[in-house]
Amino acid sequence: MTYQPPVRDHLFIFRDLLELERYANLPAFADASLDVVEQILDEAARFTSEVLAPLNAVGDKEGCRWNPDFSVTTPAGFREAYSQLVEGGWPGLGSAPEWGGQGLPHVVNLAFSEMSSAANMAFSMYPGLTHGAYSAILVGGSEAQKQLYLPKLASFQWGGTMNLTEPQCGTDLGLIRTKAVPAEDGTYRISGQKIWISGGEHDLTENIVHLVLARIEGAPAGTRGISLFIVPKFIPDADGEPGRRNSVKCLGLEEKMGIHGNATCVISHEEATGWLVGEENRGLALMFVMMNEARLGVGMQGLAQAEAAYQAAAEFAKERLQGRSLTGPKNPDGPADPIIVHPDVRRMLMDARAIIEGGRAFLYWTALHGDLAEASPDEATRQKGRDYMALLTPVLKAFLTDRGFRVCSDAMQVHGGSGFTEHFPVSQYLRDCRIALIYEGTNGIQALDLVGRKLAADGGRAMMSFFAELDGFVDANDGEALQPFVAPLLKAKAELQEATMWLMQNGLANPDNAGAASTDYLHLFGLTALAYMWAMTAKVAQAKLAAGSSDPIYAAKLTIARYYMDRVLPETAAHLAKLKTGAELVMALPAEAF
Amino acid sequence: MTYQPPVRDHLFIFRDLLELERYANLPAFADASLDVVEQILDEAARFTSEVLAPLNAVGDKEGCRWNPDFSVTTPAGFREAYSQLVEGGWPGLGSAPEWGGQGLPHVVNLAFSEMSSAANMAFSMYPGLTHGAYSAILVGGSEAQKQLYLPKLASFQWGGTMNLTEPQCGTDLGLIRTKAVPAEDGTYRISGQKIWISGGEHDLTENIVHLVLARIEGAPAGTRGISLFIVPKFIPDADGEPGRRNSVKCLGLEEKMGIHGNATCVISHEEATGWLVGEENRGLALMFVMMNEARLGVGMQGLAQAEAAYQAAAEFAKERLQGRSLTGPKNPDGPADPIIVHPDVRRMLMDARAIIEGGRAFLYWTALHGDLAEASPDEATRQKGRDYMALLTPVLKAFLTDRGFRVCSDAMQVHGGSGFTEHFPVSQYLRDCRIALIYEGTNGIQALDLVGRKLAADGGRAMMSFFAELDGFVDANDGEALQPFVAPLLKAKAELQEATMWLMQNGLANPDNAGAASTDYLHLFGLTALAYMWAMTAKVAQAKLAAGSSDPIYAAKLTIARYYMDRVLPETAAHLAKLKTGAELVMALPAEAF
Repeated sequence: MTYQPPVRDHLFIFRDLLELERYANLPAFADASLDVVEQILDEAARFTSEVLAPLNAVGDKEGCRWNPDFSVTTPAGFREAYSQLVEGGWPGLGSAPEWGGQGLPHVVNLAFSEMSSAANMAFSMYPGLTHGAYSAILVGGSEAQKQLYLPKLASFQWGGTMNLTEPQCGTDLGLIRTKAVPAEDGTYRISGQKIWISGGEHDLTENIVHLVLARIEGAPAGTRGISLFIVPKFIPDADGEPGRRNSVKCLGLEEKMGIHGNATCVISHEEATGWLVGEENRGLALMFVMMNEARLGVGMQGLAQAEAAYQAAAEFAKERLQGRSLTGPKNPDGPADPIIVHPDVRRMLMDARAIIEGGRAFLYWTALHGDLAEASPDEATRQKGRDYMALLTPVLKAFLTDRGFRVCSDAMQVHGGSGFTEHFPVSQYLRDCRIALIYEGTNGIQALDLVGRKLAADGGRAMMSFFAELDGFVDANDGEALQPFVAPLLKAKAELQEATMWLMQNGLANPDNAGAASTDYLHLFGLTALAYMWAMTAKVAQAKLAAGSSDPIYAAKLTIARYYMDRVLPETAAHLAKLKTGAELVMALPAEAF
Repeated sequence: MTYQPPVRDHLFIFRDLLELERYANLPAFADASLDVVEQILDEAARFTSEVLAPLNAVGDKEGCRWNPDFSVTTPAGFREAYSQLVEGGWPGLGSAPEWGGQGLPHVVNLAFSEMSSAANMAFSMYPGLTHGAYSAILVGGSEAQKQLYLPKLASFQWGGTMNLTEPQCGTDLGLIRTKAVPAEDGTYRISGQKIWISGGEHDLTENIVHLVLARIEGAPAGTRGISLFIVPKFIPDADGEPGRRNSVKCLGLEEKMGIHGNATCVISHEEATGWLVGEENRGLALMFVMMNEARLGVGMQGLAQAEAAYQAAAEFAKERLQGRSLTGPKNPDGPADPIIVHPDVRRMLMDARAIIEGGRAFLYWTALHGDLAEASPDEATRQKGRDYMALLTPVLKAFLTDRGFRVCSDAMQVHGGSGFTEHFPVSQYLRDCRIALIYEGTNGIQALDLVGRKLAADGGRAMMSFFAELDGFVDANDGEALQPFVAPLLKAKAELQEATMWLMQNGLANPDNAGAASTDYLHLFGLTALAYMWAMTAKVAQAKLAAGSSDPIYAAKLTIARYYMDRVLPETAAHLAKLKTGAELVMALPAEAF
């Protein structure tokens, strides 16, 4: 059995947890009634499980092929699947009506993205990056650029890329050397080499729109001298169709541990023709439009691979007969019991559920705030939405990928030796997932972004707002029934607050204290956020059960919520203890001692 | 730079921590003066770094090739390296003088094994399993079998394998179906299919000696009906040289996530001629001779891959220029600072050091007890040695591989995007390391072995002895200077004791409580054991510094010891809290809810 999209859990989130219908009065939500959302989820589940999932192993085994004419051939079946993606109208889910989209809330499109990523991460990166290019031009492009590019990108008819990294610069974009020389016609000649360009060349679309960071001749050094350019593979002709071939080409592909079906390209710009997007030297800010969207998407990828790996492990654990239950045979007529009877196997499956379902709630809850930041008529709601998106994006990116990778590793462990062979899908999930901890800013960079920028922004408004929301929930739910959830949440919140205070007191005195604390702080934050999600989930589930629902999901949610509080959340104390020891020992050895 | 064996740390362990010279009066140790050990370490470092390490990436990329004549070709260079291994006299390190070996303590050979494994894990598995076959025949074989096979195995002239797993049985060996039918000449006809046989076929040796678990016709069902057989690829002739080809062959190789240079074979026995080892139906006990040795070796592999990955990460962190230190430029004349200035990068490198060096001390300290179990003239010492080996082997196997894998993953993280490409070695370390959590009994099985068998054996004697040793150390070192190490050790020990009590009280009442607690208990144990190692290390280092040593290793050891106490050990509390919640929530969902 391949990956089966967890539509039931998505419905739980949309209907019960987020109560999407509360927002029916908002423009983006008007067309997203729960019936419509359910239909979309069902169709998305069909498309991703039937079309994309069967190509996942194919993409892994075949990989992409670079050809001496600088073209790249994607794995067998990818072209056909891409056509079906475009023809099925899926691109429209994520884009605005004026550019051909359906204008639905982003949070609904996110479910389709999650399913696509779980079914076939390498494939789904092609349209994923295209959507990023769409967003950057939507925010920063001129009217002419929008008219020319947005319809083609919104429909996925053309592909899009982000051209950031160069051999000497990954994280530190101030080191970019790619040059842009103004031409007389208002365009620029772009020259330089970019590496690790996902989808930088492929055979899925008739054109590829590169968004390229480069330095205009004479620009200031560092990050203040970087501009953003559109460099199309084929320069659009007068009708907006692909015309003359631009001098941008793929010199080769990276060999990687995973996502083999996605072409990771070395891209050479050789006096390629480029168009400035937005203002000179303000390219980084625009690139961060793509980057922030991408970061949320990468957190989603961690979650998606974890879900797919969990499903494979659960299936294996129910079918594999090996040994007997410690409490007596559960399958007495068979040669052995299925390994799901063993508590240590259960522990791994339950850990997975607690992280995946809690993480999914956290992701969609945050994404809804992102929608409200745009769609709400209320400025306070919009501001809170913006604040939460800024504050929580690094947490989602790093926490969901770190923990998602651990879930994938546990899923392999459930498989025993089978999991290490490539006959079973879990090795690919583990290998594919691993990149998500790295790209779009390593998880360490996310942690630094969180403690160095996001916490203090606007006088700490976002963080105070988050704490106030937790306090409000705890105060409003002080009854007996919710105590098993609210009490641990309150404890975790107190630890997070203590850690935040510690950072405020010690991070300014010595910034290395903030750096040394950052990753533990981020995990403490993520664990606390999931405790909030599970407490809200428990509240909803209790209410549904009290109202007489016999749907087994509610009892299961209550069990997993208690499991989370008992068996996952105790980790917060260690993060707090570690981070409060500061930077001294972290930095004590001289560099040459390593 | 490829892997550089950490000879300095091995010397620290042998000379300062274990004080090997204390044992000069024992037969096995008489020829292992520190001078000799140092010479061996230096030569081992040269051989493994110059001959084995350069073939590591080759083996990963090329893998092994199965040929239609059922032969297997190892990667380019493996045959030559194997010849050098044999000619260099390295096989002798690990075997007894009567079979051509040097009779040195096992703990000395372990250093060579660790270096070999770090340099080239896939390669080193061939001789590693050969040594396992040697040990099984040494313990269980008849005099004739010893005479025939031991010299060939001790010299690595012939290879050895373990033939356990079948498609329907991995962990649960009671399900074995391979049949043994007695022949008139006292041999057996062995028929059945074995899978995942490491080194089951290759071109490195003139013969391969399979040790095969099979069921003699009419034997009792389950594990009490399993016997052990020698099934040589070529049946030795009257001169003991490879003669007639036996009907055992390799039907194919597994595709795996890692250790591509090692041939993982499907082995078919088709009425192959086999010789019973030891008694009928007592095969499992003998196989556990190999297995226990192998388990310690697998823990070592986790450590070895972590060391190699750490070295790659440290080198990258010192060379890669990216961003600036949070406390002002450290490389003001360069375009950026080396990333080792960033506290979060340091954190990952320090975590690695704390686990690797503490884990190495734990491994060699335990292995020394294994030597004393054989060599000591004092029965109490021998008994303690046997007790510790039995108790600590599952802890070493699972803790060092779990934590070793995390170190490999952190080492990839230090590399950023480079780490995900196969241009850098760290992806291979991560992929190779991952099997160590699975084979020779998954880490979950180790945890179950620990709580289900080892804790209670002989009325809990081994565990009480371990606690008494910790108490003795704490009592004997209650001075001010050691407080930063002894106090956290005492706290961890109290937590481990509380967990042990909890298991005694709750594991019998409901065995699922023991199962649900097992992995957290094992990690709590491992963390406490490393705290003991670091406390002993700190004591030694303080003494050396007090005596005027200017060797920088002692100050570094003190720093890492404090780091371990502050930044790693706090995890114990979470393990205790989790395990004390018992099995209820772990087992609460019905199987069909997964």
